[in-house]
Amino acid sequence: MSAYSATFRVPAISSIVQPALQAQLQALIDHKTKPPGSLGQLESLALQIGLVCQSTQPAALQPSAFIFAADHGVMAENVSAFPQSVTWQMVENFLAGGAAINVFARQHACPLQIIDAGVNHVFAARSALLDRKIAMGSKNLACEAAMSALECEQALLAGMALVAESPANVLILGEMGIGNTTVASALMQKITDLPLALCVGAGTGLAPAGVAHKQAVLARALALHAQVSEPLEILAHLGGFEIAMMVGAMLQAASMRKLILIDGFIVTSALLVARLLAPQVQEYCVFAHCSDESGHRAMLDFLGAQPLLTLGLRLGEGSGAMLALPLLQAARNFLVEMASFAAAEVDGALAS
Amino acid sequence: MSAYSATFRVPAISSIVQPALQAQLQALIDHKTKPPGSLGQLESLALQIGLVCQSTQPAALQPSAFIFAADHGVMAENVSAFPQSVTWQMVENFLAGGAAINVFARQHACPLQIIDAGVNHVFAARSALLDRKIAMGSKNLACEAAMSALECEQALLAGMALVAESPANVLILGEMGIGNTTVASALMQKITDLPLALCVGAGTGLAPAGVAHKQAVLARALALHAQVSEPLEILAHLGGFEIAMMVGAMLQAASMRKLILIDGFIVTSALLVARLLAPQVQEYCVFAHCSDESGHRAMLDFLGAQPLLTLGLRLGEGSGAMLALPLLQAARNFLVEMASFAAAEVDGALAS
Repeated sequence: MSAYSATFRVPAISSIVQPALQAQLQALIDHKTKPPGSLGQLESLALQIGLVCQSTQPAALQPSAFIFAADHGVMAENVSAFPQSVTWQMVENFLAGGAAINVFARQHACPLQIIDAGVNHVFAARSALLDRKIAMGSKNLACEAAMSALECEQALLAGMALVAESPANVLILGEMGIGNTTVASALMQKITDLPLALCVGAGTGLAPAGVAHKQAVLARALALHAQVSEPLEILAHLGGFEIAMMVGAMLQAASMRKLILIDGFIVTSALLVARLLAPQVQEYCVFAHCSDESGHRAMLDFLGAQPLLTLGLRLGEGSGAMLALPLLQAARNFLVEMASFAAAEVDGALAS
Repeated sequence: MSAYSATFRVPAISSIVQPALQAQLQALIDHKTKPPGSLGQLESLALQIGLVCQSTQPAALQPSAFIFAADHGVMAENVSAFPQSVTWQMVENFLAGGAAINVFARQHACPLQIIDAGVNHVFAARSALLDRKIAMGSKNLACEAAMSALECEQALLAGMALVAESPANVLILGEMGIGNTTVASALMQKITDLPLALCVGAGTGLAPAGVAHKQAVLARALALHAQVSEPLEILAHLGGFEIAMMVGAMLQAASMRKLILIDGFIVTSALLVARLLAPQVQEYCVFAHCSDESGHRAMLDFLGAQPLLTLGLRLGEGSGAMLALPLLQAARNFLVEMASFAAAEVDGALAS
């Protein structure tokens, strides 16, 4: 047995499938005052929300966003269009309220917490920044394992604890970490076994030569870790602190029947790991958007996921998930608030 | 000269193009703390909002929704899955707050007004229903002109007046009218000259035989009105009261530099008419979604429009536009509220 399977226990996660409740929900949705099916994807979303909440009248959604920040040793290989310093500088920007995720969270009145999962910077202590720093960045996965088994487990547990303490029933997970599209590409290739070229993109804006270099670094890393096969080993060798914390957060959320609003390429790579550990976790996930980061579409296809938005976003920070939040709320709201044909005394469809 | 060109005056509409302001806006957008272009479609939307509002710091958007209801004489041809009575019954549902548009408008704190443009029903007077009834429904366009020139002009002016009196700077236009996908298909085919089969769909849920019948009715109608060629004649012969009011509303909105959030198939058919009268009106339009109603995609392609949402919606009522409203607000908010790299002291991209 490898060290990686030693201590971490995946929490118990139930399937949301419940045929009697599903039939009740579907009947409710079909009798709302609208042509059957005319709310499209919002109808399947309403069904999912009802099943996750185990209710035909789910309570108002209570969202909360967690943005995990960490640095990556693979930045020694020059894999990003931006310098590593941007990670901590953007954390300061989050704390000052000036980033996109701040703007969108304010707009939607969604609480936002920033977590230092392992940024290569010493922050002055302040209440709005949760210090869960595992180390001053991960190791360079092109040369060695990104995390030790212990670090990986610490990160998983930190993510779980954050969610366990949250009163939210909808979680938006986001991330900040210069270099982390490289890490997500590594996890994607390892887990999906898709051609590496399909898994690698421009990240924050690499030119084609930079993408080619990034792909070469990844090919080296994947060869180095070719023998790794257990989910937690894959995460430790090829992941990062923010990704491991999100894996823990997802597992905990699903174990507590909370909805998870999945953002873009990095967050979805964390889900690839989480569902290796517990396939049912995906039943709790709503896919907010298809990112413009090359590879995300293939990742979503691998998961059989249908995203709500396709707006050419590629910012991270949970920004795409935050933008999709009103659609999730709209799905819950029509289920609970719309009149039925009978209640509104509206005539039904003609016999065809 | 035909009677149709006699009295109606299209209001003056300026182009939003202003190269100096556009350059300023683009520079602002590019210097926000995010990789350039990473907010995708929201970036072009922010640019459009700035140009429409003629400001790099547009004021908070103030939306208002108008739902126009009317009946259609073409229902004598049995072109819908639902009976005509559903039009007035749904108006009652709107007034009682039980329809999808009510739920979504409440969620987004958007004022909502219901207008009787020509429903075949005598409503009890009440403050929430604006009585702009032109007639008890239009005539059957498969046999004669749907409206007289005078009725059409009255409807256009009523739509213009509603917008002229509104303090809103973003208009959501919606409609309710059993039979009105048939009318929209007629306008679409006449104006785009696309094959009729591409313009006809299932509406509220016709079976394939019903769609074939609808197409045959439309072929007859289009043959009957083949000689009609002026925009206002096309609208009068093949349109409906709610559509004509929306045409007027769009023209007035653009003349006052208000944004117009375009909903689905019916609302877009009104835009097809409005832009024949004043091509610049489209510069003020944001395309909320691509409807599942067959034909809407082709309509959007004809306009070169890129919709924000593609969720398989086909409900009308302005519901798709209302669902897209937070995205419009997010675009304005990031433009005004996000920090720049310089202000947040975040390092820029590395030289590539």
